[in-house]
Amino acid sequence: MNIRALIRDIPDFPKPGIVFKDITPVLADGPALRWIVERLAERYRGRVDAVVGIESRGFLIGAPVAYELGVGLCLVRKPGKLPHDTHAVTYELEYGSDALEIHRDTLRAGARVIVLDDLLATGGTAVATVELVGAAGGHVIECGFLIELGFLAGRDRLTPTPCFSLVRYDGGD
Amino acid sequence: MNIRALIRDIPDFPKPGIVFKDITPVLADGPALRWIVERLAERYRGRVDAVVGIESRGFLIGAPVAYELGVGLCLVRKPGKLPHDTHAVTYELEYGSDALEIHRDTLRAGARVIVLDDLLATGGTAVATVELVGAAGGHVIECGFLIELGFLAGRDRLTPTPCFSLVRYDGGD
Repeated sequence: MNIRALIRDIPDFPKPGIVFKDITPVLADGPALRWIVERLAERYRGRVDAVVGIESRGFLIGAPVAYELGVGLCLVRKPGKLPHDTHAVTYELEYGSDALEIHRDTLRAGARVIVLDDLLATGGTAVATVELVGAAGGHVIECGFLIELGFLAGRDRLTPTPCFSLVRYDGGD
Repeated sequence: MNIRALIRDIPDFPKPGIVFKDITPVLADGPALRWIVERLAERYRGRVDAVVGIESRGFLIGAPVAYELGVGLCLVRKPGKLPHDTHAVTYELEYGSDALEIHRDTLRAGARVIVLDDLLATGGTAVATVELVGAAGGHVIECGFLIELGFLAGRDRLTPTPCFSLVRYDGGD
């Protein structure tokens, strides 16, 4: 399955100089959607108690993988979206900062978790999510992504948490 | 499967006087997540060419149902989130207005579509989404929801588009 051929480059989105990787053509293709979910589910079957999906494109990958594995999906969302008691973490962006939250009661103590998102760039969101899962009593065994921008070295920031991606770009492509 | 028992009432969220239906305990429960996705997939198997999921809780239901059916998932998102050419629709809220977008090229002409979201309240979002699907060349055969707030009569606003829900509240519960 040539997933890479379905990923669409959008120059200057969301701002000038950034080439956005648009995954909507992948999701809109039934066989491609099945392929990515099956590959991820295969990798984690029997190894995890829960999937954590990061708002909002991570929901698109996390929900079907959790469904296929038969485990629950726990949400990491932007501030103010989760209605019950949360843990929150703030993290630095290139300019300014952002924050994420998780419900305090969403994970069983000691739960083995995979964190899924659509894309690994510099890794700030994923690192913050690993911290949140820890605060909520779980343990991240791996972070999985549809796409990895290898040249931004997010994988290094995630160390020692392992990292897996289905499609990797190493610059110039 | 007693899904209703897993739905958590949050009083005064997101603002005073509103009782929010929190579905995160449903999603975090592996068997419950499987049950809701299987019920919806069963209903639509063989009848649809694509699933449309509404940002962002609709992604949580739409993505696994599309996966289970083997069809593509098309996204309806808030303005500025979809990076390619879009159709947009503006709709009225109690105070002010909101807008949604769909990629112009996401549906095949004549595609039979189900629209999935977590909750049907007054129906404004669902009505706008039916309009967007039409603009993008598809035809909504039904809107499906995990929860329907029957006392808000969103189902009537959706007429003639059929509407289906797994859990219905008729007021006082």
